This record gives sequence, C-alpha cells and structure tokens, in this order.
Amino acid sequence: MNPNIRVTIWNEFRHERYNPEVMKIYPEGIHRALQNGLSPFGFEVSTATLDEPEHGLTEATLGATDVLIWWGHQAHDEVDDGIVQRVQERVLQGMGLIVLHSGHYSKIFKKLMGTTCALKWREADEKERLWIVKPTHPIALGLPEYFELDEEEMYGEFFDVPDPDELVLVSWFEGGEVFRSGITYTRGQGKIFYFRPGHETYPTYYQEPIIRIIANAIKWAASDRGASPFYGNVKPLEIITPKVTP
Amino acid sequence: MNPNIRVTIWNEFRHERYNPEVMKIYPEGIHRALQNGLSPFGFEVSTATLDEPEHGLTEATLGATDVLIWWGHQAHDEVDDGIVQRVQERVLQGMGLIVLHSGHYSKIFKKLMGTTCALKWREADEKERLWIVKPTHPIALGLPEYFELDEEEMYGEFFDVPDPDELVLVSWFEGGEVFRSGITYTRGQGKIFYFRPGHETYPTYYQEPIIRIIANAIKWAASDRGASPFYGNVKPLEIITPKVTP
Amino acid sequence: MNPNIRVTIWNEFRHERYNPEVMKIYPEGIHRALQNGLSPFGFEVSTATLDEPEHGLTEATLGATDVLIWWGHQAHDEVDDGIVQRVQERVLQGMGLIVLHSGHYSKIFKKLMGTTCALKWREADEKERLWIVKPTHPIALGLPEYFELDEEEMYGEFFDVPDPDELVLVSWFEGGEVFRSGITYTRGQGKIFYFRPGHETYPTYYQEPIIRIIANAIKWAASDRGASPFYGNVKPLEIITPKVTP
Amino acid sequence: MNPNIRVTIWNEFRHERYNPEVMKIYPEGIHRALQNGLSPFGFEVSTATLDEPEHGLTEATLGATDVLIWWGHQAHDEVDDGIVQRVQERVLQGMGLIVLHSGHYSKIFKKLMGTTCALKWREADEKERLWIVKPTHPIALGLPEYFELDEEEMYGEFFDVPDPDELVLVSWFEGGEVFRSGITYTRGQGKIFYFRPGHETYPTYYQEPIIRIIANAIKWAASDRGASPFYGNVKPLEIITPKVTP
Repeated sequence: MNPNIRVTIWNEFRHERYNPEVMKIYPEGIHRALQNGLSPFGFEVSTATLDEPEHGLTEATLGATDVLIWWGHQAHDEVDDGIVQRVQERVLQGMGLIVLHSGHYSKIFKKLMGTTCALKWREADEKERLWIVKPTHPIALGLPEYFELDEEEMYGEFFDVPDPDELVLVSWFEGGEVFRSGITYTRGQGKIFYFRPGHETYPTYYQEPIIRIIANAIKWAASDRGASPFYGNVKPLEIITPKVTP
Repeated sequence: MNPNIRVTIWNEFRHERYNPEVMKIYPEGIHRALQNGLSPFGFEVSTATLDEPEHGLTEATLGATDVLIWWGHQAHDEVDDGIVQRVQERVLQGMGLIVLHSGHYSKIFKKLMGTTCALKWREADEKERLWIVKPTHPIALGLPEYFELDEEEMYGEFFDVPDPDELVLVSWFEGGEVFRSGITYTRGQGKIFYFRPGHETYPTYYQEPIIRIIANAIKWAASDRGASPFYGNVKPLEIITPKVTP
Repeated sequence: MNPNIRVTIWNEFRHERYNPEVMKIYPEGIHRALQNGLSPFGFEVSTATLDEPEHGLTEATLGATDVLIWWGHQAHDEVDDGIVQRVQERVLQGMGLIVLHSGHYSKIFKKLMGTTCALKWREADEKERLWIVKPTHPIALGLPEYFELDEEEMYGEFFDVPDPDELVLVSWFEGGEVFRSGITYTRGQGKIFYFRPGHETYPTYYQEPIIRIIANAIKWAASDRGASPFYGNVKPLEIITPKVTP
Repeated sequence: MNPNIRVTIWNEFRHERYNPEVMKIYPEGIHRALQNGLSPFGFEVSTATLDEPEHGLTEATLGATDVLIWWGHQAHDEVDDGIVQRVQERVLQGMGLIVLHSGHYSKIFKKLMGTTCALKWREADEKERLWIVKPTHPIALGLPEYFELDEEEMYGEFFDVPDPDELVLVSWFEGGEVFRSGITYTRGQGKIFYFRPGHETYPTYYQEPIIRIIANAIKWAASDRGASPFYGNVKPLEIITPKVTP
C-alpha cells in the first residue's frame, strides 16, 4: 500500500458531458474511472477538472499533490496560462506528472518539453499491442512482455519530443505504425511519464495493465530523491589565488 | 572549409557599450570578436544585436541562418516574446543553436529546456579547467584532454537543465565546484549546444580552444540529418480488420 | 565522395557456398553485394571472410580499417577468440563497427555489449516496415520517414542489449512485433551501429535504403572526434596542501 | 527497513592482511567495515572473499544474493574466469552489482562494460569533493548538495566506460581533475552502480555519506522491475499474408 502518496487526477471533462458515445463508456468522467481504478493501490486520490474555479488546481491543491495526472484533448487552449505556469513550477519543484494520451498536446506538456509534441494519428478502431522494451524499469512491474488493446486511436512516429531519458514501452499498430508509448523525463526536481493509450471513445482506462502502469508510474514519480538544490551567488569552498593582472 | 554554413551571431551588446572594463576587452562587441575568430573556418558569419529592429532576427535573417549563436546577460527580459517564439520555431524546424555562458538564463534557452536553467555562480577571477569527457564527439575535434582559462566567472552545479543527450565537457573550478560545461540537446529538428565559458570581463572569446569548440559545434549543429517529418492525420498502411462491436 | 574512409566488410561466407537458395541471391557472397553497393559512395572498400587466414583480419588489415562491417550467423563459434580480442581493441582505439542482422549474436558484439544480445525471432516471409524515430541523426540522411522490406526474418523485443546511446530506427513486423532496429553506441574511442535487416534468404542488401543507411553509418562512425586520452599515473595540476595526519 | 534485500559484499581482502597501514584502518577487512555500516539499514548482509573456495561466490550464494558489492585491487587477475562468468550471468538475470573504487579494473566490471575501464590516477592525500548532479535520483536520498573526503586517491577523466545511463555524482579533486564518480547502468535485467571513492589507505568506508550512498544504491538496484523476457523462436501474433514469390 502507498498511503502517503497524494495523487490528483486532472481531467478536461468535456467529451463525457456532451458526446453520447463517450458518456456511455465514462458516465462519470475519465477522472472517476481512473480514481476507481487507482484507489485499490492505496494512494490518496482526488480529482480536478477544467470547469472548476482555477481548473481545480489551486496553489493549495498543487501544494498537497505528489503526483498529478493529466488528461485533456479538445480544450487545451482554455487552460489558463497562469495555471499552466503554476503547474510547471510545482513540477520543477518536485511534483510528479503523468501525461495521458491526447495530453501530448496540452500546454503543460509542450511547455515542459520545449517542442511541438506533434505526431501522426488516425481513428480507425485498430488494434494496439504495447511491448515492454525496458523490463528493468519500475513502471514495468507485474506486466507481461506485451499486452493488447483491441481498439484504440493510432499515434505514429515521428513523435516530436526530446529523446526520452528512458524508453519503457513501444506500440505496434494494426495499421502499420510504431510509437514510443511509455517514456520518462526529469525536469527540475520533477519526474514525468508520458503514456500513450486512452482515447475517449474506448474503455482503455478500465483495462488492468493500463491501470497497473499508471499506478507503477505514480510510485516511480513519487520515489526517493535528494534535496532540492540551492541556486545563486555562493562563496568559494577553496582559497582562490589572487591573479596578477598585467 | 565550410562555405555553405550560414552562422548568425546574436549578441545583447550592452555591457560593451557602457562598461569601460568590458569595452577594453571587446571594443567592438563580443559578436565581432566571435565573428573574427570564426571567419577563418570558412563559415558565412553575420551578426545581430538586441537594439536592432526585431533584434536583428527577422524572418528573413532566421530563414537564412543554419546556426544561431546566442550571448545575452543583463537584458534577457528585453527580448521580445514574439521573437523568442520565432527563434524557437526555427530551431524546431532545424536551425542549430549555440547558447553561450550567461545565455543559460535567456528566454530562448529556458523555453527550449522547459526548466529554470538556474545554477550557482561567483565572480572571483578564478581558474577554470575544462576536461573533455566524450573525446569521440565531433565537438572535441583537435582539442587536448583539457585546457585552462586563467580567470573566469564560476558556474556551479546543480545546473537545472534536462539531462543532456551528450556530456562533452566538465569544468573544474579553483574555488571548489564542478559544472557540466559542454552539453548537447536535440529539440525538434534542431541541434543545440550549451557552452559555459565567456564572462564579459575576461578575454575568453579570444582563446584558441574556445573558438575551436564553437567552430566544431557549428559544424556539428549543421550536420547531415534526415528530412523533416509529417504530422497529422494519416491513412493506414495496412488493412485494418473491422471490429465487431458487441 | 569519401575517398579517405577505408571500409572492411567481414562476412562469414558459408550460407552462400552451400545453400542453393542463398547462392541464388548472393552468388558471390553477401560481402560482394555490400561492396558493390557501397563502392559508388567513394569509400575504399575491401572484404575479409571467415575461412581466410586469421579470418582475413590481420593486424595490418585492422590497422588500415576505419570502419569494419560484420555479418555472421551459423559459425559465430568458429571465430577465434584472439581475433575477437584484436577487433575489440581496435574498436576501443577508434575503429568504427557496423554489426548487421544475425551479427547480434557474434562474439565481438556480445563482448562489446556485455549482455546476451538475445531476442525473439521467426522466419515467416513477413513484411518489415522501418520507421525513423531520430530524423536529426546523420544516419537518417536522405531517407523517407519509413521504408518497407517485403519479406524478412522477424526479430522481436526484448532485445537484450544496453540502452542505446541513440535510437534511430524502430521496426514494425507484420506478425505483430516491434524491434529497435537501428541503434548506436560508443565504446572506448569507437562508434558502433547495430542494424537489424539482412537475413541471407532475402535480397535485403540490394535495397536502396538499406545501402544508404549503411553508407551513412560508415560516415558517422568515421567522423571527426578528439584525440585518444592518456591513462595511468599523472602529476597534479594544482598544488596539493600537505595534510596533517593526527 | 529493508529486511528482504540480501546483500553480499565481496572483498579481495589482501591489503588488509599484509599492509600495516591498511590493517590499522580496516583491521577486519573492508568487507567487515561495509557490513557494519550497512547492517543498520536492515539488509541481510553477508560477505565473501577472494581466498575462500570459489572466492565465496558459489552458485548457491549468488542465487541467494539480490545485490553484490565488489571491492578488488591488486589481485584482479587471480579471480577465476569461470566465477566471473557466473557473476555476469547472475547480473544479466537480475542481480544488482555495486562496483567500488579500484573495482573499475576488475574482470567483472570490464566484462559488463566492454571497454578498458582505464582512467588517470594519483596517490597524493588530496581532497575530493563529490557533487550531486542528479538530485532526483534515489541514490541521492538524504544527501547534501556536496560532501568532502579530506584525503583520497585521485581518479581523473577520461574514464573509459560507456556513457552511463545516469550520471549522479561528479568529483572535484584538489590536484585539478574531475571524475564521473557515481554512474548507473543496466545490463540484461541487472542494475549496476559504479562508485569511485574507497582507497584502502583512507577511512572512506566509515564516512556517513559514503555508506548512505551505498545503502541507497542497494535499494535502487533491488527495486521493482518487470518479469524477465523470453528469448528464441516465436509464433506470429498476427496473420502473415503468404507472399507470391515471382
């Protein structure tokens, strides 16, 4: 059990309120499905959504969050720049961040990556098979060598992100593409995991390996680390010889 | 010779106009010293400065630049956000970027890194010794195992940047610190090199190994690469089996 | 043109002498097909094979080789350990090494990697599609975003090699697997590229993108770099204060 | 506490039996000093030494070891090649390995790295200051930004090892050199940490931050991970279209 890890699941929560196809799969929203899936792992899980005041991401909430999960899609532009900056600052101070699926195009992910985060995509109800290519990674705990999602949206390379620190999962798509689907980064004192699957029209977040990976990533992102560094002007630690300027 | 590589040296060019100590070392500006040093390598070298219209970085100039060199310090905030975005877009499209010394705190570097780019520092006329820790890198061409700068500003770890793709140089400082002084990144289609030395009160940019490293980095950043990728919606490359939705 | 790069292609050269199916495709051996393909790039290309004295890899030959290409399969065990050590030493001193296909299980590759280099495999005449996932790499020069081989042997993950320095190509296989097919390493002063395709029963080494990638890798492995380091006992560069041992 | 992690400390144990200077510091051997230091962390710690049968590294012992610590120096050549291979196999199957100081030249480390593992060195009773350059790493838990060893042997760059997966510590030496002193690798299913300090004539292994780092590295090397992969011939996961050979 992981009683001390405080997780906040942020969801745009729009598709689930207007699109009957999505409502049927996630009647209470993607954030509730994730919360229900993650609770048995013993995390303290709360949620926040776009249309709450400050998008539910107040200073107090972020200050009490160890790992933030992010799902967004159609309303990336409606996320306030000040809130994005607030989230970035918390990540750089050490909050973990797990970016899901279409969150690749969120302001916060692009801001932390420094790139366009663009990719190829297709909605064609196609099979995705995810292969573990770094089985020693804590995020791979308890997983088989690969697992399948019967129907998913396709994301294809080239994925315009910095070379990841670690490449954990690579996807095979029925339509012929591959994708770096599970990748890690460190930015400042914060650990970041991008995880590809999770299109809103498929029941992806009810799949056991998907929830397990997210739970593993939470534990990884909240794991032990050293103290935050000091920045700025410092005194010398050794004697500096005065130079004779000619 | 490298006749086809078009280099633009961008310099804030403020210290050199107001500070007598700096004027004495760089009477025509840091950009001219760099231009004079780099010209014998056969690059087409031009310059741009903060106080020119559009900071000298028009669409036309950037469009005709293969590698941009960036030196800034006291006036980072005066750089227009729109120009910063323009430079970022060009980097992501493939323009090389060499960020020098105090440019670590420039808007463009922070935007591309996604971190604070903070560090420790001290001005104490101290000795810096730069060690090559990746001698196979093209940027190390023609260098000895280490070289010294008699007097430089100190930059110390922790340097809040993403783990570099490649670590080429590590500095030893007389006052007791170390620093990752030569580091590479790729962002989008652009190659980036951060190079630590170059405080405005020392004649660093007249030193042979310093100029050689910058010249090597220009060639590296402008080197062969593949075509830019396509992003967006794509047709399948294989036949996708229709799924029977229950 | 690359007149100064001296390439030696090493081939086991057994399948091509006994197996009619392979003889039909590579009547003069895989090494000749590669030599013919690479010669137009202007390299000085010579060949060596297992059954020559010292496997054709004398001190003189290796000393005059900038980049060695390695293809082996059924007779890995017949390669003399002393010759393997000689090749390793030359790589560590700076010779480039390109390991092809079933060479993943060669003594020299396993020795340089330190791992089993094991993988999954299948011979089923299946389609392979290779995707470029690092388009900025010199090895990607002149390539489209992906290319296909109509029939190849399958290699699947997990591939038991160290995390590569750079991941350039990822393969999609018709039968459902993915593979890290183009990966780079540096060992000592030598640059290493492993490239997956090339089963002896298919005309893979006559394909234009395959030859182009190998040619690009030769140029990359022979590229500019710094001088070889000194190892051993050294005098201090700074004055060391005598310690008062209590 | 970490009751389930089984640690075996392997020590050459020669200097401590013949050299009075070393005997004074480590009267029961370096392995006992390490064992005493690590026991409070709750690991199950046992020891093994060169002159025991099979160097104390029987199949049974290695099979019951989660993390192996390795200290050797003057007798690297006396370590049996078969035992080295046995240790390598266990590492590739998932046993953690922590290589200390002069163990950089051990057979097992060179075998796992594939390089010479050579470096510069000097014995001059000089100060070493170790800087944390990856404070987010679990190995940095509980450490200050830097710490000092009043007297140590110097190891200087270039250190001929593969680029590490992660660079955690960089040393500053009084005599003017720098060194990548804390570096991680994964080989097969095993996690490896090389940690520089620990010359036999100094009381390094009694220092609190040194023991803490080794304890952190043990936890890191024994941490959660996925299942070991299957290698070999596999059936297709998708239907492969028969090709019409012309």
